Amino acid sequence: MNAPGFDTAATDDGIGARAQIRAGYSGPTAGMARGYVQANLVILPAEFASEFHRFCQANPKPCPVLGISERGSPALPTLAGNIDLRVDLPRYRVWVEGKLVDEPTQIESLWRDDFVAFALGCSFSFEEALIEAGLELRHQTEGCNVPMYRTSVPAASAGRFSGPLVVSMRPFNAADAIRAIQITSRFPAVHGAPVHLGDPSQIGIADISKPDYGDAVSIRDDEMPVFWACGVTPQAAIAAAGVPLVITHAPGCMLVTDVRNSALSTF
Amino acid sequence: MNAPGFDTAATDDGIGARAQIRAGYSGPTAGMARGYVQANLVILPAEFASEFHRFCQANPKPCPVLGISERGSPALPTLAGNIDLRVDLPRYRVWVEGKLVDEPTQIESLWRDDFVAFALGCSFSFEEALIEAGLELRHQTEGCNVPMYRTSVPAASAGRFSGPLVVSMRPFNAADAIRAIQITSRFPAVHGAPVHLGDPSQIGIADISKPDYGDAVSIRDDEMPVFWACGVTPQAAIAAAGVPLVITHAPGCMLVTDVRNSALSTF
Repeated sequence: MNAPGFDTAATDDGIGARAQIRAGYSGPTAGMARGYVQANLVILPAEFASEFHRFCQANPKPCPVLGISERGSPALPTLAGNIDLRVDLPRYRVWVEGKLVDEPTQIESLWRDDFVAFALGCSFSFEEALIEAGLELRHQTEGCNVPMYRTSVPAASAGRFSGPLVVSMRPFNAADAIRAIQITSRFPAVHGAPVHLGDPSQIGIADISKPDYGDAVSIRDDEMPVFWACGVTPQAAIAAAGVPLVITHAPGCMLVTDVRNSALSTF
Repeated sequence: MNAPGFDTAATDDGIGARAQIRAGYSGPTAGMARGYVQANLVILPAEFASEFHRFCQANPKPCPVLGISERGSPALPTLAGNIDLRVDLPRYRVWVEGKLVDEPTQIESLWRDDFVAFALGCSFSFEEALIEAGLELRHQTEGCNVPMYRTSVPAASAGRFSGPLVVSMRPFNAADAIRAIQITSRFPAVHGAPVHLGDPSQIGIADISKPDYGDAVSIRDDEMPVFWACGVTPQAAIAAAGVPLVITHAPGCMLVTDVRNSALSTF
């Protein structure tokens, strides 16, 4: 991304983070507005919105819906009062017929009256809770992206949307895996509990050292891989559906909201 | 046990179950008073009570204390109004200097003014919740006792009480293991979440097919062993401490209380 740094002090909440982004910050949002929910963004034409919503409803673990805009509106008032989805993300991805065609820093010129925007829960929220519990996230320790895998488990299909369940993987020893299950179970709105742990071949992952997205991380002898449903699942389904025009966040460049992560905890 | 059957209709709550036991039923309590907490019982001289209580406090997962009697009293009013610990269990075990010497059906003649009784949480409560969630308990399917193992993990010691953590094992596939962790986490008063899952050698179990107590169960190719802290842990510590006289429940012959299992669920 060749991102300029952001002013940590000025981005200690969602309002400050979005202000810096509107002022030109175009890098990753990790570390911005700690404690606040960051979301995946999917914008597509209204013609596809109902089917995509059904796809999310049928697949709540990979596609937890945090908010949906009114048709044609770039606002998401339940996530923050002043959101403008056309300028509030550092970088976007524009997909035409399933192919990536651009990565602009704003989408004002592309906005259409028939767009519907979906904000979907992202693992940043539960990762914050895992770190607060003292657990190590290997991809953070190793300074890379979390490894993600396409599985042999099909997502539930809805209309034109179908595809494999995509999972992210974090290795833990048994005690930490149990703790991670407890913690992430508290956050159903951001992928919730793991979908699998242990033998990767049981969900169709042939080689754990070769993720389909992100980067491989090391797994120690006393550790097991733990798999969570991943927000790449809807992206893969959208790409396969060949929607004429879709706009999403660019990887790591999320929608920063005014909702606290703690507000998503169910107990 | 060569147990006579009990009248299911008359034992559908704790009061009915204890009445049948007082009337002479001397078999296992499994299936009695469904929905009500059954407890492990440990009775020892007051001289050892404080140290044993500290041992329980230091080891809450294997030794969750549900109630403690007044010195010399066979009542446990917080668990049921009319409990008489001298006659309310179907069968007891009497230990002298750590050795089993008798298995009587009442202990009125043995009761002493310096006895202190501890009721400790037992896995029956969380097993009921697992079954209600549709999970299979292999030892029930195979009609045997749950397998239990002495581990290489030491329990925290307190005074004269020390020994290994003893665990019970239930095999599950990954999805059911995750669900079982969620469910048992809700029941910290009855052993709570598992202490380990996966590779048994990591906790010093050399051969999973040879439990130290109970019976071996089959583990299918797609399953992993899941281990919970077990109420045999305090029994092993008591035996090793060489307490002059201890009375416990006989295996499977528990104290049936008036407390509902659901009352122990933390959320």
